[in-house]
Amino acid sequence: MEQTKYILEEKRMPTHWYNVLPDLPDPLPPPLHPGTKQPLGPEDLAPLFPMELIRQEMSSERYIEIPEELQDIFRLWRPTVLYRAHRLEKALDTPAKIYYKYEGTSPPGSHKPNTAVAQAYYNKKEGIKRITTETGAGQWGSALSFAGALFGLEIKVYMVKCSFYQKPYRRIMMETWGGNCVPSPSEETAVGRKILAEDPDCPGSLGLAISEAVEDAVSRDDTHYSLGSVLNHVLLHQTIIGQETKTLMEDIGDYPDIIIGCVGGGSNAAGLYLPFLKDKLDGKKPDLRIINVEPTSCPTLTKGLYAYDYGDEAGMTPLLKMFTLGHEFMPPPVHAGGLRYHGMAPIVTHLHKLGLVEATAVHQLGTFEAGLQFARNEGIICAPETDHAVRVAIDEALKCKESGETKTILIGLSGHGHVDMAAYDAYLSGKLEDYEYPEEKIRAALKHLPLNGK
Amino acid sequence: MEQTKYILEEKRMPTHWYNVLPDLPDPLPPPLHPGTKQPLGPEDLAPLFPMELIRQEMSSERYIEIPEELQDIFRLWRPTVLYRAHRLEKALDTPAKIYYKYEGTSPPGSHKPNTAVAQAYYNKKEGIKRITTETGAGQWGSALSFAGALFGLEIKVYMVKCSFYQKPYRRIMMETWGGNCVPSPSEETAVGRKILAEDPDCPGSLGLAISEAVEDAVSRDDTHYSLGSVLNHVLLHQTIIGQETKTLMEDIGDYPDIIIGCVGGGSNAAGLYLPFLKDKLDGKKPDLRIINVEPTSCPTLTKGLYAYDYGDEAGMTPLLKMFTLGHEFMPPPVHAGGLRYHGMAPIVTHLHKLGLVEATAVHQLGTFEAGLQFARNEGIICAPETDHAVRVAIDEALKCKESGETKTILIGLSGHGHVDMAAYDAYLSGKLEDYEYPEEKIRAALKHLPLNGK
Repeated sequence: MEQTKYILEEKRMPTHWYNVLPDLPDPLPPPLHPGTKQPLGPEDLAPLFPMELIRQEMSSERYIEIPEELQDIFRLWRPTVLYRAHRLEKALDTPAKIYYKYEGTSPPGSHKPNTAVAQAYYNKKEGIKRITTETGAGQWGSALSFAGALFGLEIKVYMVKCSFYQKPYRRIMMETWGGNCVPSPSEETAVGRKILAEDPDCPGSLGLAISEAVEDAVSRDDTHYSLGSVLNHVLLHQTIIGQETKTLMEDIGDYPDIIIGCVGGGSNAAGLYLPFLKDKLDGKKPDLRIINVEPTSCPTLTKGLYAYDYGDEAGMTPLLKMFTLGHEFMPPPVHAGGLRYHGMAPIVTHLHKLGLVEATAVHQLGTFEAGLQFARNEGIICAPETDHAVRVAIDEALKCKESGETKTILIGLSGHGHVDMAAYDAYLSGKLEDYEYPEEKIRAALKHLPLNGK
Repeated sequence: MEQTKYILEEKRMPTHWYNVLPDLPDPLPPPLHPGTKQPLGPEDLAPLFPMELIRQEMSSERYIEIPEELQDIFRLWRPTVLYRAHRLEKALDTPAKIYYKYEGTSPPGSHKPNTAVAQAYYNKKEGIKRITTETGAGQWGSALSFAGALFGLEIKVYMVKCSFYQKPYRRIMMETWGGNCVPSPSEETAVGRKILAEDPDCPGSLGLAISEAVEDAVSRDDTHYSLGSVLNHVLLHQTIIGQETKTLMEDIGDYPDIIIGCVGGGSNAAGLYLPFLKDKLDGKKPDLRIINVEPTSCPTLTKGLYAYDYGDEAGMTPLLKMFTLGHEFMPPPVHAGGLRYHGMAPIVTHLHKLGLVEATAVHQLGTFEAGLQFARNEGIICAPETDHAVRVAIDEALKCKESGETKTILIGLSGHGHVDMAAYDAYLSGKLEDYEYPEEKIRAALKHLPLNGK
């Protein structure tokens, strides 16, 4: 009998996060102040984040120690399991070896708490009482609410309005952990009130919810803001996924030829692949392929503009150099809510510009088809976001079948779909449609970018 | 730092199920034929179950081998993790040590697939193409649909109508794995049509759904029936939980003083405690306390009648000697749908009659209060059923605080609550009420029991 699951002993869990910044062949373009458009200093971020996270955001240390108290909390659900997909391989009749690292066994059911508890921890240390954030599909808001419960912090979540009503289960999860969740746009912020005055039926967007959360945070001394993806320190915290995986694959005596993850802001995919990318940067594994998968309805990496842009709708956040569909992007109706963000992590953007990672966009229908095939063979019903990675993994495994190559494919299985069954229902009942974000909208967005799209 | 999670290596997983029947001090009263009221022979069950499961149902072998093919499938989610509840202990300020064995990481999110895949396996071996079953809250129907996907079997699920409409996510999970789920009472069976003719708005019950599933199964040669709890072979398959736990606790050097599980039909609790009960029967651990927890709204063990009764509403199943609220029991509105069954596993019934295990009934509001406290400390949001066990575990831990005893408490954490968030919403918004099943209804049920309640 062949082994199916691989898991580290708790005592072998990573004790440090891996910071890719010092290993990048070129430095990241710096974030700019939204007012002055000049490079930001740490003090500019202090109203939003604790100093330790700001330090991590800009750090040139390669390995950053994980505090013991935090490691203890990670043990509530970490280390997570690396699976060998024996049954899927057989069903596909592929010579490829497929592995997946599954983050769906965390309390909120995704990779998000890896950074949520770290951010809550550093805020608590700095004396902060309350954290605001935004959430799209609700994975991030529930992860931060979970983290807030562990540290006795008040959590306020601005949830994109259409998701708030479509996905009540995520809101209730937040409330179960003691979080406070309101639909965005809300009456609680100036930016929310302004939008509601113009359009009372505005369905909301992640960019707008970020604006509300940021406004709320800067208006109160006891409150900070927290972002669940995109920023360097968020990707840093997620490298615990890739490090666990790398150690396990060393134990197994295998190494991935292709690493595949879905990207919204980029943190789950990067968290898995950055520790492996180091080997590529070091010349140890020059052929390693890394594929970022996004929806055709939100093709940030594959069709977006490479420019400085705001992280939010209202232009309150620092400017980040990233692939973007424009900060005024209003998401089309796609069920992978976690992938509906106009921007992309600067690190992922930069790696893509440098040709170190690939990107591909896939249609919604194909992702659910892949999700069904996965569920019926491996058991796990993935989140619709995760199905994007599964789609491309299956495609790569089928290419191996054609070519006869025995490649090793590693998938980032970022979360389970038990709270997203309505999306599966829409697919199963034939109500789901494919959608490609129109190129003319991307061209039009160019006009609204700060710095004229530079 | 103290270890939080304990997990067996795959190669140390149990290779046999533990069968308590030969170790019982008195034999179980035999099941009776619903027509003749005489003890059943194996051939009487053949229209419903494959011969290997019938053999297991009546076996006097202490250890029954788990086929390797089945062990391979268990590895998709087993072994599961045993947790030490460090944070909950601290929050309760108790000297008690609390452990919980968590079954919520299986693909459907509960212990149910442990028997679902075993039952599907033996049916497949016998050439069966299709399996019918009933489901209340939907945990069992989704587990059997998952098992059907793995073995290429058609699964037909009769789901209690009120849950079918209240809990669409579970239905969609079944469909995602390829199962076919209809609300019960349905137009697809004679018993369903009869009930609908009398009361088109009948909300259904588990007993009625069983009648429909049994009628469907006996009317087709290629079809068998499957039950997710109550029967001896179901409890047998669940002993994999207790065996894993026992080995882990031996590794740790600890042993439970109290084992606590919630009971509907009894399989998850018994699956956890039967391997430990063996030590009590053998005189090795005479003081071991085992507590079965049920809702006050369905107080089968604590207030039910001890008598032969049908497993289903229409009286089509064999008669089992068990604690029962009467097979015509219509469940009151309680959110722990998996605990709303009129009967109880004959093994659990028998152990309770013999004074080897205890039973207690708890109010709904207290279970959600416990669930919230658990979620905010340990992270995991339990299924409402599971919260019943958590409630009593917290109570026992608080008694230890008063007495200063350092007891070891082991909880069966049967599943997660991500698909049951509506119940948490009702609790959090103050819409949930306590309910005690009235004694007069139990007395009234006596008149409708077969064999005049003997």
